[in-house]
Amino acid sequence: MSQQIVARRGRPGYDRDSMLEVVVAAFNERGYDATSLGVLAERLGLSKSAIYHHFASKEQMLEVALSKALDALEAVFDAPEATTGPVVSRIRFVIRGAVIVLCEHKPFVTLLLRLRGNTAIELEAMRRRREIDRKLGLLFEASRDEGTLRADMDPRIAERLTFGMVNSIVEWYRPDGPITPEQLADSVLELVRTGLREPASL
Amino acid sequence: MSQQIVARRGRPGYDRDSMLEVVVAAFNERGYDATSLGVLAERLGLSKSAIYHHFASKEQMLEVALSKALDALEAVFDAPEATTGPVVSRIRFVIRGAVIVLCEHKPFVTLLLRLRGNTAIELEAMRRRREIDRKLGLLFEASRDEGTLRADMDPRIAERLTFGMVNSIVEWYRPDGPITPEQLADSVLELVRTGLREPASL
Repeated sequence: MSQQIVARRGRPGYDRDSMLEVVVAAFNERGYDATSLGVLAERLGLSKSAIYHHFASKEQMLEVALSKALDALEAVFDAPEATTGPVVSRIRFVIRGAVIVLCEHKPFVTLLLRLRGNTAIELEAMRRRREIDRKLGLLFEASRDEGTLRADMDPRIAERLTFGMVNSIVEWYRPDGPITPEQLADSVLELVRTGLREPASL
Repeated sequence: MSQQIVARRGRPGYDRDSMLEVVVAAFNERGYDATSLGVLAERLGLSKSAIYHHFASKEQMLEVALSKALDALEAVFDAPEATTGPVVSRIRFVIRGAVIVLCEHKPFVTLLLRLRGNTAIELEAMRRRREIDRKLGLLFEASRDEGTLRADMDPRIAERLTFGMVNSIVEWYRPDGPITPEQLADSVLELVRTGLREPASL
């Protein structure tokens, strides 16, 4: 099916970003390996050659999609607010930033979190993800040293539980629903700061 | 390859449970759909007919595996401690119970949490999972009504964040590692009860 026919049928034209949204939705539903270029062409209503106008290969689509998630997360962890000042404030900054990135780039972060493969692109993305995890681990250790993490909580467990909670947001958050990313970030921060109970009932 | 040859090569004999462990590991690595009976036979070092001695079909393996996770989780939610008494105690009981089930039946719960398919077996498992989620939702609403959930926290968000944290444990917990399921349950309960900080630093 040529682009011309597609246009005549009234399908929207794609730019690279809008094409990538459709592609990443397919990757998340079927898995990257199981999603052939033929499947993508059908979903997009484009010919394979029209797809190649935007992307050199399926691998490149994956690379661009993963970079969207990783660039946004790295920007949070490299910001001055994440690297200077009281550690407890830095942790609050990266939790808020990560929640907002997850909500705003949900399909891309979902793709990143579900990676299991062994292609060079996947391994590089997993390396970048591990580097973020390493920085997180250091922050929680520094929080213990600073005296802002409770002494009965192992920093590594605290980090994994906190970011397990943060990452789980991609499983249920609806960008078109009533909860804004900022509201959700507030709830996460309140939960990790003082827990679920009313202070009076502690 | 016959069972006899397998035995001669010194491979261990399988009972149904030990066979299911190998099968579920393959499902979790490759996805259920992508795991053929041929792949399973190779991993097990058994002929297909030897596998059929234990299971009628690949579908039956999935059904038995999912039931292991669901039976254990339902037992937690149906226990008297989860259905009577102060709501805040019930929530603590189901959090502890769910953490322990996740740790002790990690491969089976992982399989359950990653379900996306449309076979009758998967749909039935997803129905049972939704029923557990429904009970959880009711517990958190009752906690708000009881006054033990902070008023500034939406019960549905509180429930999703809490059980997002609980479910994320399957991503990193190592049954052969130093943390016992009970210790991990304690950490989760402390985090949701009073947060990450030392009380003095609040």
